[in-house]
Amino acid sequence: MRRLFRLKGDRPVATQARAIATRKGIVDAAASVFVRHGYAGASISEIADEAGITKGAVYFHFRSKELLARAVVDAQDELATQVRERSVAGSPSAVAMLVAMVRELGVLMRDDVVARASMRLAVEVPTGELEDVGGTYEAWIGPTEHVIGQAVAEGDLRAGLDAAALARFLVAAFTGMQTVSVATSQLEDLMPRLREMWAIVLPGIVAPGREHIIPGLLRRA
Amino acid sequence: MRRLFRLKGDRPVATQARAIATRKGIVDAAASVFVRHGYAGASISEIADEAGITKGAVYFHFRSKELLARAVVDAQDELATQVRERSVAGSPSAVAMLVAMVRELGVLMRDDVVARASMRLAVEVPTGELEDVGGTYEAWIGPTEHVIGQAVAEGDLRAGLDAAALARFLVAAFTGMQTVSVATSQLEDLMPRLREMWAIVLPGIVAPGREHIIPGLLRRA
Repeated sequence: MRRLFRLKGDRPVATQARAIATRKGIVDAAASVFVRHGYAGASISEIADEAGITKGAVYFHFRSKELLARAVVDAQDELATQVRERSVAGSPSAVAMLVAMVRELGVLMRDDVVARASMRLAVEVPTGELEDVGGTYEAWIGPTEHVIGQAVAEGDLRAGLDAAALARFLVAAFTGMQTVSVATSQLEDLMPRLREMWAIVLPGIVAPGREHIIPGLLRRA
Repeated sequence: MRRLFRLKGDRPVATQARAIATRKGIVDAAASVFVRHGYAGASISEIADEAGITKGAVYFHFRSKELLARAVVDAQDELATQVRERSVAGSPSAVAMLVAMVRELGVLMRDDVVARASMRLAVEVPTGELEDVGGTYEAWIGPTEHVIGQAVAEGDLRAGLDAAALARFLVAAFTGMQTVSVATSQLEDLMPRLREMWAIVLPGIVAPGREHIIPGLLRRA
């Protein structure tokens, strides 16, 4: 309370739009700092410096580091929805949509600091400090399972395929490829690694007699 | 220097064996704390409490948190070598050895806090605070590629399989399954998830005409 009170003086006489822009600037700055130092290593001071505002202004918008992390994860959820919509758009089949989803998510990780921070938070904070960030995984498993089910119904993926198991596996494999790619190449090799995954996995999940679709899918990967 | 000097008084008049046991106790305690709070969130105080010794005694053996993390990673490297040796022992073929290696590594992660800490450090510290922990991945990719090459030579895996790509993929997928399993079930579902992975991947990598080996391999997974 004391903190909030003291900081009120910092509040700019801002329009709603300016407040929203400032808030977004803080979330982006927090994302950069989470990517650099992780959750435990991030400080509000460094986030304020990164955003080019005072610590007080940060606290005006977010009362704690936990709320900042939550805002990063929420911002990523919106990006993820966009990824899924973009994947639906250009895809002639459900299996093409599945491959496109993984590619678009990879592009997002490579290019967007909020997405990268969100993944680092999910990977790093499984120990209760930031509760239910593990929900990030569940949020991907459901839609992925749905698309796999469609691809089975369309006859492109094997009948009898366990869609839930494949969805869990793809989400976990993506997480691991992202993690290893960050550690070994700063994400530079993520896209070729994702293509390698499909080259390994597709021959085992495509329906017998549909093997001819594999090269086209790999070109979309 | 000052710190080391001040702490000399804490040094027990210990035999070599006792010093080694103390050192191991500190490494185990550090592993527990790294698992709980990650690298950035771990403090020497908590590690000392966990080990039941003074902060001074910790500093006598390890001058910094970084050296402690390094010791955890090194201890895991030894365990990993044991995993590989155990996997060779009971395996009638190279492909069986590959499946056994993944299983034994899963068991290690589930049961051994040093292994779990080492994985968390590798996943969490890709940003230069602890250099080349990413080497943990490379340390697994080489031996895995070797076993895959043997399995191709033995005719169980497809000729023309890219052994390096499959090795990179398996190491990354394992990393991701471990990460997701920690976040969603405290590692309780890791072993069934690893079996799911093989059920998905094996049909695409087993050599044509060798599909009958899959059920036996899944029983070893």
